[in-house]
Amino acid sequence: MMTGDEYRASLDDGRATFFEGEQIFDLPGHPILGITVDSAAAGYDRFHDPAPGAVGAFMAVPGSAKELREQVELHETVDLLTHVTYASIMTLLTAADRIEATLPDQAARIRAWVKDAQRRDVRITQCITDAKGDRSRRPGNQDDPDAYVRVIERRSDGIVIRGAKLHISAASMGHELMTIPTKGMKPGEDQYSVACMVPVGAPGVKIINTTYAPRHADTRDFPMSGNHHTPEGFVIFEDVFVPSDRVFLAGEHPEFAAVFAHSLGLWERLGGLAAFVTGYDRLVGLERVGHIKEKISDMMINATLIRASLEAAIENCSVTSDGAAFPSELYTNVGKYHGAANYALMVRHLHDIAGGSILTAPGMADLDNEQTGHLVRKYMGTLQSVDGIYRSKLFHAIRDYTADALGGWYAVTNLQAGGGLYAQRIVSRLHYDLEHAKKLALEAAHMGESANGSA
Amino acid sequence: MMTGDEYRASLDDGRATFFEGEQIFDLPGHPILGITVDSAAAGYDRFHDPAPGAVGAFMAVPGSAKELREQVELHETVDLLTHVTYASIMTLLTAADRIEATLPDQAARIRAWVKDAQRRDVRITQCITDAKGDRSRRPGNQDDPDAYVRVIERRSDGIVIRGAKLHISAASMGHELMTIPTKGMKPGEDQYSVACMVPVGAPGVKIINTTYAPRHADTRDFPMSGNHHTPEGFVIFEDVFVPSDRVFLAGEHPEFAAVFAHSLGLWERLGGLAAFVTGYDRLVGLERVGHIKEKISDMMINATLIRASLEAAIENCSVTSDGAAFPSELYTNVGKYHGAANYALMVRHLHDIAGGSILTAPGMADLDNEQTGHLVRKYMGTLQSVDGIYRSKLFHAIRDYTADALGGWYAVTNLQAGGGLYAQRIVSRLHYDLEHAKKLALEAAHMGESANGSA
Amino acid sequence: MMTGDEYRASLDDGRATFFEGEQIFDLPGHPILGITVDSAAAGYDRFHDPAPGAVGAFMAVPGSAKELREQVELHETVDLLTHVTYASIMTLLTAADRIEATLPDQAARIRAWVKDAQRRDVRITQCITDAKGDRSRRPGNQDDPDAYVRVIERRSDGIVIRGAKLHISAASMGHELMTIPTKGMKPGEDQYSVACMVPVGAPGVKIINTTYAPRHADTRDFPMSGNHHTPEGFVIFEDVFVPSDRVFLAGEHPEFAAVFAHSLGLWERLGGLAAFVTGYDRLVGLERVGHIKEKISDMMINATLIRASLEAAIENCSVTSDGAAFPSELYTNVGKYHGAANYALMVRHLHDIAGGSILTAPGMADLDNEQTGHLVRKYMGTLQSVDGIYRSKLFHAIRDYTADALGGWYAVTNLQAGGGLYAQRIVSRLHYDLEHAKKLALEAAHMGESANGSA
Amino acid sequence: MMTGDEYRASLDDGRATFFEGEQIFDLPGHPILGITVDSAAAGYDRFHDPAPGAVGAFMAVPGSAKELREQVELHETVDLLTHVTYASIMTLLTAADRIEATLPDQAARIRAWVKDAQRRDVRITQCITDAKGDRSRRPGNQDDPDAYVRVIERRSDGIVIRGAKLHISAASMGHELMTIPTKGMKPGEDQYSVACMVPVGAPGVKIINTTYAPRHADTRDFPMSGNHHTPEGFVIFEDVFVPSDRVFLAGEHPEFAAVFAHSLGLWERLGGLAAFVTGYDRLVGLERVGHIKEKISDMMINATLIRASLEAAIENCSVTSDGAAFPSELYTNVGKYHGAANYALMVRHLHDIAGGSILTAPGMADLDNEQTGHLVRKYMGTLQSVDGIYRSKLFHAIRDYTADALGGWYAVTNLQAGGGLYAQRIVSRLHYDLEHAKKLALEAAHMGESANGSA
Repeated sequence: MMTGDEYRASLDDGRATFFEGEQIFDLPGHPILGITVDSAAAGYDRFHDPAPGAVGAFMAVPGSAKELREQVELHETVDLLTHVTYASIMTLLTAADRIEATLPDQAARIRAWVKDAQRRDVRITQCITDAKGDRSRRPGNQDDPDAYVRVIERRSDGIVIRGAKLHISAASMGHELMTIPTKGMKPGEDQYSVACMVPVGAPGVKIINTTYAPRHADTRDFPMSGNHHTPEGFVIFEDVFVPSDRVFLAGEHPEFAAVFAHSLGLWERLGGLAAFVTGYDRLVGLERVGHIKEKISDMMINATLIRASLEAAIENCSVTSDGAAFPSELYTNVGKYHGAANYALMVRHLHDIAGGSILTAPGMADLDNEQTGHLVRKYMGTLQSVDGIYRSKLFHAIRDYTADALGGWYAVTNLQAGGGLYAQRIVSRLHYDLEHAKKLALEAAHMGESANGSA
Repeated sequence: MMTGDEYRASLDDGRATFFEGEQIFDLPGHPILGITVDSAAAGYDRFHDPAPGAVGAFMAVPGSAKELREQVELHETVDLLTHVTYASIMTLLTAADRIEATLPDQAARIRAWVKDAQRRDVRITQCITDAKGDRSRRPGNQDDPDAYVRVIERRSDGIVIRGAKLHISAASMGHELMTIPTKGMKPGEDQYSVACMVPVGAPGVKIINTTYAPRHADTRDFPMSGNHHTPEGFVIFEDVFVPSDRVFLAGEHPEFAAVFAHSLGLWERLGGLAAFVTGYDRLVGLERVGHIKEKISDMMINATLIRASLEAAIENCSVTSDGAAFPSELYTNVGKYHGAANYALMVRHLHDIAGGSILTAPGMADLDNEQTGHLVRKYMGTLQSVDGIYRSKLFHAIRDYTADALGGWYAVTNLQAGGGLYAQRIVSRLHYDLEHAKKLALEAAHMGESANGSA
Repeated sequence: MMTGDEYRASLDDGRATFFEGEQIFDLPGHPILGITVDSAAAGYDRFHDPAPGAVGAFMAVPGSAKELREQVELHETVDLLTHVTYASIMTLLTAADRIEATLPDQAARIRAWVKDAQRRDVRITQCITDAKGDRSRRPGNQDDPDAYVRVIERRSDGIVIRGAKLHISAASMGHELMTIPTKGMKPGEDQYSVACMVPVGAPGVKIINTTYAPRHADTRDFPMSGNHHTPEGFVIFEDVFVPSDRVFLAGEHPEFAAVFAHSLGLWERLGGLAAFVTGYDRLVGLERVGHIKEKISDMMINATLIRASLEAAIENCSVTSDGAAFPSELYTNVGKYHGAANYALMVRHLHDIAGGSILTAPGMADLDNEQTGHLVRKYMGTLQSVDGIYRSKLFHAIRDYTADALGGWYAVTNLQAGGGLYAQRIVSRLHYDLEHAKKLALEAAHMGESANGSA
Repeated sequence: MMTGDEYRASLDDGRATFFEGEQIFDLPGHPILGITVDSAAAGYDRFHDPAPGAVGAFMAVPGSAKELREQVELHETVDLLTHVTYASIMTLLTAADRIEATLPDQAARIRAWVKDAQRRDVRITQCITDAKGDRSRRPGNQDDPDAYVRVIERRSDGIVIRGAKLHISAASMGHELMTIPTKGMKPGEDQYSVACMVPVGAPGVKIINTTYAPRHADTRDFPMSGNHHTPEGFVIFEDVFVPSDRVFLAGEHPEFAAVFAHSLGLWERLGGLAAFVTGYDRLVGLERVGHIKEKISDMMINATLIRASLEAAIENCSVTSDGAAFPSELYTNVGKYHGAANYALMVRHLHDIAGGSILTAPGMADLDNEQTGHLVRKYMGTLQSVDGIYRSKLFHAIRDYTADALGGWYAVTNLQAGGGLYAQRIVSRLHYDLEHAKKLALEAAHMGESANGSA
């Protein structure tokens, strides 16, 4: 396994990564992107085990509700890059299982690749969302055929792909791009049915980074986003060659295109649900005015409904024949949906309670300035025992978390991650036990078990 | 234990019970109230065990999450009178436990009474809500001092009480009125701190019944409320003598007045939450038009959040030193609250989907009439395979359940049972782990463990 | 013009109308249906003008925002049958205007018929909603071809129609059935494109009545629905001959099928919006506990938003070249939508505030009974100045209006009248000024007037 | 009247204003604060009239619904500083009117000051919100007596004040601080009952600025906040002397303390409501994917309800005996409340529809970079006719407006401006016609005009 420093060195592999219009040649040394590298490096050091062939503890496959709960709790504490690496590995193994009967060679290739990736101790990011062009048209019917990533050439030793993947968290900080179709493909859309692993440094890969990281001179006013941030990558494949042993779908078998994204969905939403459990509590905790009880009750009730969903998702997990525990699809999706749908209201409550100082609390530098510092301290305080520095910091935290660039990032990401509200509604619908509900209704109506047409 | 018929006979004890302005002398034979008596009698037959000293299986105290779940499931299938009897017994035992250290005699009296009640196999109803007079004034400060039930005389062998209790489900069908204070009392309100067991047939007790039962000639159009209904009793204590061995608080110890109602709260709300799990599913099941997906998704998601809350309430039960499993206060209250608060929207979705025939589907008699029956059958049908009788019945069920007298009863009862939305919000707030939430928030704000005032 | 008594007599025209399985031969004398007849007769007496050729004041066509407001206010005070007669006349004249250019003969026939109807002073009801069979199939593709009303025979002097129309308020109390297509028809669905006026007493017409009217012996407990109620008619056309001068679309010109329903929509929703203005205020007024401020604020705010929408609909009316003032489509639909969508929450607030006595207040007969009357009066009172009779009546009103059969009728009707939430959303979308909104957005984004593709 | 350049020069008056820890000596030349100065200067040039004694057109007092509408529309186009100056003048004149009978000298002083301010053509900002200390205690009962602005010394020629006012928009860019009590004061809180006009450059005034202005090197990615922004001032009065002719309440007459804030409320909320009319449309306009109809319908319906409220507020204005038209308190507050309460949901809909590129669209510099520009253009495009530059700009606008620092500023300000949701609910409740609603309810209940206690 790599140490943090070995990880830092591994990023110098010729990758073409851009930020604010400039190519970045020294990622670990970059004033903004380097902070994300540091977080990832700390993750390497945390899980480092010098034993040959060791595999990180964050990789363990849970086998029961108890182990699933432990794994969920562990992943609440790891950096984002470590977490997506785990979700990627779980996705690949799940997909291998699902295609094995029909595509045994591809399943074997996936498993071999996973084993090798664990040996190399690399970090993996998830390239799913295509550029998409005109959303009302199918992939094969776009003005620009590259609007979805596709195979443009087949060679004896591999394939060449072209296209772009959007919103790829930490793409520039990982080693491998797990590149999979964004949705199911239909017959005739074979070229778009492509799943493969692409090294970040491969020729033709370009990544443009964007980030909510504050650009302010004094990042102390951003107690959250000033300390941790992860850029999103806009990943472009400009005619990239991928060798055969890294190709799992090669522009064929469109009937399997959706298997990878579906495998990913559950793990991604479980992560999202677990993050809501913490995030909702955090919003409650940021509130400070005890007497505005109705809004706080609403916040607590929503936080507890989210937590109940996670409890039910874990306790009602299903264990596969391999002994792997999967959280309940229904409870995971319903909890994630409720969390995403109500986040805006939770934040509104917090803004309503906390007041205008969210926006207008003077900064840490104003506290440092001797002409103004004592006055800020005086007038931002409440009781003698609660001074203005403490309250100023709390307001900075609320602004940073909910009403500035990071807050905007959460607002959108909470909705869009794991496929958007719409996708979570669909999956909830699929897994709800409708037959049971119908039976209850007919019994209550004293219509017994009667089939449709009978009186 | 009694049989159903023995139960019927036991109601002829001189009780003064009224309906629509008339005193009822033959409850089992009454065309409307007799139906509730039948349901209760069936409950007696179901649990009858001829062994001497036998106690009904519905009385078992659960000792683990598993047994708690079984008990919840069992009580989903019993009649209302059986269920409230169980909740009353649990309430009394819980209260005995809580007052034991300070009022050992009273605790012993409760336990003795419970043992005897189980031996006599009687049914108990719950008299809590007082008339209240002007809600903005305390009990002792009303124009009419009887607005809250109170002790008007103390004798060597017991007490005399006066007042009224409202909304007492099935009061006329039980044997014992568990009469407890509606809320906490303050020093000086001693006379209102009264808890005792009053036989329904005791001199001075009068009960006025109201019911959502349909008065229509043809109750087939009311597939639910035409088959089962329970009257609410308006119970009046016109100077009723209660012997000492039935008195648990005798117009003294106002500091214990709230113990009984609080003990009842958890069990009542658990019952409410469990009923929502079924009731929400039932609403989903009553919906029939598969393509209106957004509303149905909403309904399913809400139904599943309710179910997740029940799951979490059971799995996170606490087991007392006596080995009794109590469901989680937090999850029980939050789930009950969410169910109550969203019921109106669930019904609105159902009405929106199902359309005007909820109101205007012709009745069963119109189907019988040979001039009109074949036409109703023709025009209420959809496919050849779904005839108009089936659909008419389904519309009757929806109307009965959600848009007629029974529907109104559910609308109000779901909100008010277990103390109203307000009470459930308070309890949720009390049990939410606010310290944990604050800790999460401060950590996220990089403000560590710092106490309030420190920088 | 007819008097009330002449109207009563006019109903004895051989009409085949059914109730609870029996044909009714004496409508004015029927214990339940006769009450609606009385309301309609009172409407005749109110507007009676003995002058030859007089036309009812409720028929006036408004020509300005001011007159439109007066007409809206007038119709808030008339009985339902009078109101739908007016809306029908306005619908027919609007439709005549819209088809005139292409179908001048039909337009002339409509105008002639309207003139004659005004002379005869008849009442008109609106037959729109077809039986529909399987909602996912077009009219011409049903198992039963009669699922939508259609022309089954053309004769030289008229047409023969077959089918059924559902949810026709007061159908049995009017003289004429304005029978129009429920939606647009496509080429090949000509036979379903039929609009005509059918006398209620025409051979082959059968009407089955349903009603929320209380069947209780003592209707004093139903202060609203015990005094006024209107049955819904299930209207069946069993091969009914309609003479040519009453036929406006004769199973042809499917491109005009939707004109009538669209013409009706605006007037129906304006009526609905105006009723909400009153109905929302009424809900606020029924609430009695002044200190539950948050819920009451919500109720008042919603009531005022509804009123603001009516204000804006009237003030922004458009006046046609004929000088007729039409309310704004946008504000009418948005207000009606908001009222319908939030009604369930308004009622929930009322139920939450008012408490369980909505359901369990003893009846008027219990107040009459000398054993119980004084006790009900005592324990349902609050202050000495607010006695129990007053409060009992108020609770009866709340139950009747929101939590019993009439309440269910409002719950469903508010949603479904005027085409359901879905239809109101569509019309709102059509009339919203999207181009203006886009322009505002692009200006704010400093993207000026730039067309789509330009940088 | 001043020109823009004269305004710029007027700011060099020795004012002590701070930003990010440093005192600013050249406001017009400051890279961030100077932009706000430019906006204000443009406002001066726009309304400049060289005639001696001219008064800006933006100052006109409307006298009818028509003129009120024109004034509302005019103020939608002016810069913030001009708008608050107008609202301040209206507030002062309204307050003068209300105190005249009791405090004629003070009323005269206000009117004289206003006349002089108009002659000097100065800009005024609104200092209301005090530091407040512990919100659960009264002003006179704080650990620090300066938590609310107060009079610390009375002199023969004026008063000396101490304290701080928070969230003062554009305080550093105006000439005069309209300093008024934040709420009503009680007897004994006389020293806190202080209203006066303080020049920004007066000795002892210090202002700390905060702003959502982007600090990024390339502000093209912030099409809104990169072009216009206004800092919020944290205004401190460190023992500031105010001459008598500028003092309207001098630490006495606490019964009039609230008059000023109440006078301000209506004008501030009208401005807020008018801004919502535009802002909601803008959110609708920013949405680009036509087929997600349900969410867009919701957005349009809310935007139209807001617009209906403004329509009703204007049409139902009241004209005072002086001929000044005031918008309806009820409709203004209800509309502002609905806009504020639903803003979070509107933004959520937009985020749900628009997708992750809100956050991750590459920046303008990435479009400039020749290695990446053509690729961004290609993959951010949809149709050939909608290229990637256009779409990138649109995503920047959405992020800037709703999901970055400016978006956070709107989220909080929409809730808190004009006193917060709570204040708007209170005012709505005060102005709703409850007697009318009760009358409607009693009539519907057939309880006639009966007084409370009568049967």
